[in-house]
Amino acid sequence: MSSTRIIRASVIQTCTQAYSLADTLDKMEKFTRLASERDGAQIAVFPEAFIGGYPKMSTFGVVVGDRSAMGREEFLRYYNAAIEIPSPALSRIEQISKETGVYIVTGVIERDVGTLYCTAIFVSPVHGLVGKHRKLVPTAAERLIWGQGDGSTLPILETSFLPTSERAKEVTAKISASICWENFMPLLRTYYYSQGTQIYCAPTVDARPVWQNSMVHIAIEGRCFVLSACQFAQEKDYPADHPVADANARNPDNIMIAGGSVIVSPLGKILAGPLLGEEGVLTADLDLDDCIRGKFDLDTTGHYARPDVFELKANIY
Amino acid sequence: MSSTRIIRASVIQTCTQAYSLADTLDKMEKFTRLASERDGAQIAVFPEAFIGGYPKMSTFGVVVGDRSAMGREEFLRYYNAAIEIPSPALSRIEQISKETGVYIVTGVIERDVGTLYCTAIFVSPVHGLVGKHRKLVPTAAERLIWGQGDGSTLPILETSFLPTSERAKEVTAKISASICWENFMPLLRTYYYSQGTQIYCAPTVDARPVWQNSMVHIAIEGRCFVLSACQFAQEKDYPADHPVADANARNPDNIMIAGGSVIVSPLGKILAGPLLGEEGVLTADLDLDDCIRGKFDLDTTGHYARPDVFELKANIY
Amino acid sequence: MSSTRIIRASVIQTCTQAYSLADTLDKMEKFTRLASERDGAQIAVFPEAFIGGYPKMSTFGVVVGDRSAMGREEFLRYYNAAIEIPSPALSRIEQISKETGVYIVTGVIERDVGTLYCTAIFVSPVHGLVGKHRKLVPTAAERLIWGQGDGSTLPILETSFLPTSERAKEVTAKISASICWENFMPLLRTYYYSQGTQIYCAPTVDARPVWQNSMVHIAIEGRCFVLSACQFAQEKDYPADHPVADANARNPDNIMIAGGSVIVSPLGKILAGPLLGEEGVLTADLDLDDCIRGKFDLDTTGHYARPDVFELKANIY
Amino acid sequence: MSSTRIIRASVIQTCTQAYSLADTLDKMEKFTRLASERDGAQIAVFPEAFIGGYPKMSTFGVVVGDRSAMGREEFLRYYNAAIEIPSPALSRIEQISKETGVYIVTGVIERDVGTLYCTAIFVSPVHGLVGKHRKLVPTAAERLIWGQGDGSTLPILETSFLPTSERAKEVTAKISASICWENFMPLLRTYYYSQGTQIYCAPTVDARPVWQNSMVHIAIEGRCFVLSACQFAQEKDYPADHPVADANARNPDNIMIAGGSVIVSPLGKILAGPLLGEEGVLTADLDLDDCIRGKFDLDTTGHYARPDVFELKANIY
Amino acid sequence: MSSTRIIRASVIQTCTQAYSLADTLDKMEKFTRLASERDGAQIAVFPEAFIGGYPKMSTFGVVVGDRSAMGREEFLRYYNAAIEIPSPALSRIEQISKETGVYIVTGVIERDVGTLYCTAIFVSPVHGLVGKHRKLVPTAAERLIWGQGDGSTLPILETSFLPTSERAKEVTAKISASICWENFMPLLRTYYYSQGTQIYCAPTVDARPVWQNSMVHIAIEGRCFVLSACQFAQEKDYPADHPVADANARNPDNIMIAGGSVIVSPLGKILAGPLLGEEGVLTADLDLDDCIRGKFDLDTTGHYARPDVFELKANIY
Amino acid sequence: MSSTRIIRASVIQTCTQAYSLADTLDKMEKFTRLASERDGAQIAVFPEAFIGGYPKMSTFGVVVGDRSAMGREEFLRYYNAAIEIPSPALSRIEQISKETGVYIVTGVIERDVGTLYCTAIFVSPVHGLVGKHRKLVPTAAERLIWGQGDGSTLPILETSFLPTSERAKEVTAKISASICWENFMPLLRTYYYSQGTQIYCAPTVDARPVWQNSMVHIAIEGRCFVLSACQFAQEKDYPADHPVADANARNPDNIMIAGGSVIVSPLGKILAGPLLGEEGVLTADLDLDDCIRGKFDLDTTGHYARPDVFELKANIY
Repeated sequence: MSSTRIIRASVIQTCTQAYSLADTLDKMEKFTRLASERDGAQIAVFPEAFIGGYPKMSTFGVVVGDRSAMGREEFLRYYNAAIEIPSPALSRIEQISKETGVYIVTGVIERDVGTLYCTAIFVSPVHGLVGKHRKLVPTAAERLIWGQGDGSTLPILETSFLPTSERAKEVTAKISASICWENFMPLLRTYYYSQGTQIYCAPTVDARPVWQNSMVHIAIEGRCFVLSACQFAQEKDYPADHPVADANARNPDNIMIAGGSVIVSPLGKILAGPLLGEEGVLTADLDLDDCIRGKFDLDTTGHYARPDVFELKANIY
Repeated sequence: MSSTRIIRASVIQTCTQAYSLADTLDKMEKFTRLASERDGAQIAVFPEAFIGGYPKMSTFGVVVGDRSAMGREEFLRYYNAAIEIPSPALSRIEQISKETGVYIVTGVIERDVGTLYCTAIFVSPVHGLVGKHRKLVPTAAERLIWGQGDGSTLPILETSFLPTSERAKEVTAKISASICWENFMPLLRTYYYSQGTQIYCAPTVDARPVWQNSMVHIAIEGRCFVLSACQFAQEKDYPADHPVADANARNPDNIMIAGGSVIVSPLGKILAGPLLGEEGVLTADLDLDDCIRGKFDLDTTGHYARPDVFELKANIY
Repeated sequence: MSSTRIIRASVIQTCTQAYSLADTLDKMEKFTRLASERDGAQIAVFPEAFIGGYPKMSTFGVVVGDRSAMGREEFLRYYNAAIEIPSPALSRIEQISKETGVYIVTGVIERDVGTLYCTAIFVSPVHGLVGKHRKLVPTAAERLIWGQGDGSTLPILETSFLPTSERAKEVTAKISASICWENFMPLLRTYYYSQGTQIYCAPTVDARPVWQNSMVHIAIEGRCFVLSACQFAQEKDYPADHPVADANARNPDNIMIAGGSVIVSPLGKILAGPLLGEEGVLTADLDLDDCIRGKFDLDTTGHYARPDVFELKANIY
Repeated sequence: MSSTRIIRASVIQTCTQAYSLADTLDKMEKFTRLASERDGAQIAVFPEAFIGGYPKMSTFGVVVGDRSAMGREEFLRYYNAAIEIPSPALSRIEQISKETGVYIVTGVIERDVGTLYCTAIFVSPVHGLVGKHRKLVPTAAERLIWGQGDGSTLPILETSFLPTSERAKEVTAKISASICWENFMPLLRTYYYSQGTQIYCAPTVDARPVWQNSMVHIAIEGRCFVLSACQFAQEKDYPADHPVADANARNPDNIMIAGGSVIVSPLGKILAGPLLGEEGVLTADLDLDDCIRGKFDLDTTGHYARPDVFELKANIY
Repeated sequence: MSSTRIIRASVIQTCTQAYSLADTLDKMEKFTRLASERDGAQIAVFPEAFIGGYPKMSTFGVVVGDRSAMGREEFLRYYNAAIEIPSPALSRIEQISKETGVYIVTGVIERDVGTLYCTAIFVSPVHGLVGKHRKLVPTAAERLIWGQGDGSTLPILETSFLPTSERAKEVTAKISASICWENFMPLLRTYYYSQGTQIYCAPTVDARPVWQNSMVHIAIEGRCFVLSACQFAQEKDYPADHPVADANARNPDNIMIAGGSVIVSPLGKILAGPLLGEEGVLTADLDLDDCIRGKFDLDTTGHYARPDVFELKANIY
Repeated sequence: MSSTRIIRASVIQTCTQAYSLADTLDKMEKFTRLASERDGAQIAVFPEAFIGGYPKMSTFGVVVGDRSAMGREEFLRYYNAAIEIPSPALSRIEQISKETGVYIVTGVIERDVGTLYCTAIFVSPVHGLVGKHRKLVPTAAERLIWGQGDGSTLPILETSFLPTSERAKEVTAKISASICWENFMPLLRTYYYSQGTQIYCAPTVDARPVWQNSMVHIAIEGRCFVLSACQFAQEKDYPADHPVADANARNPDNIMIAGGSVIVSPLGKILAGPLLGEEGVLTADLDLDDCIRGKFDLDTTGHYARPDVFELKANIY
């Protein structure tokens, strides 16, 4: 019964090299190579906003009814740190994927004319960029800096994962991405389930312990593998003038984002993690047949649905 | 900051007195009085199938393509243990509620002509029966014995909870019920959220540890209080001839359903439980304003929805 | 050439009586009566968020990636200050309209389950509430506290304005409302123009001098009367603990929102205002025929449109 | 914080040398050299119809239902004063641009077979003619003499502006042109915004004071620099037999078109002008980063749009 | 060979009762009854702008670059004289058609929000309004007062004409309308030919003698019956202050629009008219088989077309 | 107002010298010299099929489903009378043009391998043959003897017309040719208009009176000069055995083709002709500026077109 439909997958817990795109891309390359060479990973999932950065604790000078000139400068700097799609930065990511053979899913801050989006991109070692998803609803203060995605960037990609070592084989699976609190959107998840997602990527910066409950719940509810990659960042990873939780107790080692990356199976078993207190790579074997085993008794968009009572209309284009 | 909108609520972890309706109703009265008198509870939630019983481990003689005469006899016995609505059994429950002042939500096996339903009823100390919900999708072998509910029994009730002690006050809240794996149905939950449920009752017999993750997730996702009441049952609580996990190791103390009742707040904090290894009453104060505090940053059917991308049509009547 | 199609209209520059709904409604009554009795107004437009309040300078404890407990309390208080539609507060507004004969357009903070909306309501002295519009896109920090309206609340109402004095006559006109920075949304404005709006209400809290340019521009662009009602508020109009521009120089007379209410004709002539530095009522006669005189040489959705080059699709329902 | 993305830009307020193409081109050269040599301008925007002329006050003998032979003669003369693209006149403009290094945007009357168009051309010192835009809707009596442009001439050009002095650097920006009352077409403007225009040129002959409001509004609405160049013309600048406002009070110094050229920043600040009562050159530094600073809180085709409610379809080819 | 496919048709040469809608409608009724009762007509075609009027010689105070207040007043008056579709005026026309049994095609000035259109409406005695066509391109000064139609109002209607006397029978034919100089638009005509128009109505105010050539040409080119109805109007038919050709020689009997209504057969034979110097009704029998006889040797959109060389794309919707 | 852009043009009404190419060419020389020397013509337009002949009344022995041997002989004779391009006959025409200085447009029957075409050729005194146009659709029985032209022979030639006398000057104009019923093809005409034809040549053999209407119409519609040259032929101009209208009343003077040559101005004024009952030369001055004067109010492919509604695709190569 040793399945031949196993994908070796990694989630990368790391943080942006603040306001240095080149260094962040170097970091991506380093961790991708580690996942590939040490663990034989075929896919690596990076956290939300990894490219471009997550300006945690910032207010961008915004209060109700007013903005400040300094906040506009901060936005300008943040805008300039974002990338366009396509762009040289994307080409570099495609190159990393190609050289390592690792399929990469990563959070990026995407620039489109005058608006930034919190985006996840899908990069194949063979085809380069194959899709992108823009976060549908930014959370709280994120609404000050990011726009909203729509039905045109909700791909579920049928993907061929290449073997990167003798341990792995080429396997095809369906992959999707939900960013941070999008994971609390039941209709979005239902849509992904209805399309058969098997590798449910959840790039995030939510490092609260309760996050773990949701990752397990989603795995069970959707009968899919959940790969949640969270940033781990300390004050030293931000510019010296960046706001912190306690301005009177600045310490380079203070934690800004605590991590908690995790991999969960379709029956709710934690396969790796949660990783706390450090950057690192978690790797696990994903037996795609577990999705089917799980759907035996629960298929929320199939035999366990009630379309006569609840109908979901998705405006996808 | 002491809110005046606090409800004192209990979940009752107990099990059916097998095939004795009278004894089961006595048990209900005993626990309701305990919740009221000891804890000052204004509402008590009992587990799934508490009235009528959950025939765990039974197959009712069904194999694919065949049924046995013995299985038919077993169904006949189970059918007779169920109650009609209304019926003397219901009157007794109304009487318990009226005498104690406690609003009761309980799982019952409901008989309707030739079909049984896994139902939750809502009983008010003032108005008696005020609503019922039939489980929409039975799980696995439950499909051999229970029918499916529909859009006519999905109430969200605006309810006035009476003070039962000096500690509590009359407070109005919205209440709903989702039975066992209905809690894995994202569209059903979304519907309840959209109607403003605040007291989300989850009667169940799912005693797996992963159940806890879903209860916490739902509380966060819906910004509501989750009151999950699970049965705790041992082999001695079933008839002597009832199938068990290991027929060669029958032991009256062997656990049939392990419990795990729990009360969770809208921000994912566990207020009471999980209770394991025994029957008992869990009680907590529910500050309704926590629903609003929680919706500040997450309202999955309000500011955190995307009706332009995902529209839920509910066929309720 | 003395037109008989003249409406006497007022804009009311005032502010919310913070966290006292009853006092704010009294203020509404006082100003409505003043407009009616002193000026013979047939319609009165109140500012954005007049009912419910505009928490200028607040951050609700939100930073990127975090919310505070204190911010949740502030939201709870703000939530409780909002009104539902319908509700007793609405009935009071309907009563004010009925008693004075004045058609009222006012900004309200509307509560709908867990989300607040920045709404404008239309109240007729004869029919009571006849429509409401929810702001489509909150600005900056408003996104932390208000949800988004959609195509179901974009009414253009054909309305009969009653005579309230001998000076006025019953006249029918089309009326719409765009709240604050919605006025910078060219597609929304175009939609209103295409439906023939004649009385374009612009409740706002934007008191910057440049606001005047936009009001004049819109009047010209749409060949409609623009009635912009802005709040005028000082620190004394907010709770003592409310954030202010300079916490070290609190002064009850410091200006929080500076006003600038104005009435502009379809050819860009300022008929009344801008009113600065005080609360008050501006009144002007609106000769509806000026809309037609203006459309002679500019009708941006008629003879001055190019539907073959630019087509606007509106998803109204 | 001294930005390196600054363009030094001029608007030229002048008028056509009536019915002398050579003299008008000489005038263009004179003013371009002045902008370049005195002010170090990298771009110069000339008014609507500068080449070819704006026959203000003419009726071309047209009444409803009839044309006169004399009007046909006037049209013939006007037709002959227009230029073709390409043509020797265009070559001369390209030469002026090349010699001065100044990017030129100018209004021209363009002849194409039997129809005249009110056109703006874009001339680069390096590439010569790089684009043209034909006015989409002529205003009032202009409809007697000009045809309508269409979706084939709506360029937004990504342009490299050369340094013309030590003060300036080579900077790339996006540029567009909207002629006179096209600036009142909200869908056209929206299209330009959606394509990221940063230097929004508005050649015009509208010299009414209210024009200023619209220029400020557009700058704010589009978060772009608005460069409005208006003609300044007196009766002496027209042929002796040209119709004037008051034929009984002809005076060479009477004003025909009063000017009002202006440069506005993306936040609505007037950087230069309005210039009234004389010909002249206005120059200002345009810090392109101000577009981004401005889009922080308003991006009408990005985070401040509602494509689910209002969709703009542009038929561009 | 006496065909049974003969329609008895009238063209009505008359003029608007200036600025009196009621009187104009009475005039319509009078002439329709005359056509029906005296001539047995089954269809009556009225001139361009018959309802609403053709303000010949007006300039509406427009010169290039300027409009006058008096011109705006004139437009307001003209705007108010126009009708909406539907409206009571339309109902009256439908009533006239119904009572007489005569199918009516008439020019109307149609009001739609802020823009007027020069429209032809088709009114059936049985079905009431069955279609309308808006003039695609107004001519010269008409562009100051009318907007442009588009591909949504280009009907070719298959119509059943009722017998109104013993002489006539019920016959079905295809009918279209081209207003005034639209008849010089070869692509519009081609479109109508391609759809099989048989009764080509040409309401007009063009009373020049050369108009006759075009009517004959079109009949031949399209192998259809051409029914051209022109206004006949004198100075007395306009308000006393209306502009005239020679203000120094005003005379009530001076001709403003000279008529020239005519009916032509598909082979270019003039069946009735041209009528000059008076109001009146022209009537002729239209033998629909003549269309087929004519297409034997010329079918410009059939055997006489060259779609490989010239393809016409029509954007009809 | 004496324009310097005047061309002196002739149309030649004559007929083929049946089955004698040399005599026909002599006739061409005679008429060309007459036009040049008597009238100072710079261009001469000859009728359709002037070279080669128009076998009016012939059937070539064709009935539906059968051909006769005699018809084949007739075709052979007709085939041999046609000319190739180039050929000695063409050289002779070029020589006539060169010697007289007159630009010649003439109908020829062109032989190309096995098919004959009804062609118009353009012959310049300076450059010789500069273009040819083959009739696109032969009419009725012409389809038995002529093939169809295509998009490769639809030239609009920009031509320099030389002065042939002191009265004339060298002037450049655009010229085209449409043969006989091609003039009823609206899409062909539209194509010519769009290319700016000014001298619209219409060689024909259609001598019906209604032809005049179309010539006037086309001049107006296209705002071009129409030069229609028709054959004038009698029975004596055909071979004795040629079929005639009434074989029982053969008479050498009976008219076979009645003429009707005409020159029309762009405003529909008849400048010369129609010539009836004889051969002859019509001459007129064509003031090219009249095209522009005319396009002032009608340019069917410019300001009077609606490319958004009707698009003409021409397959020209």
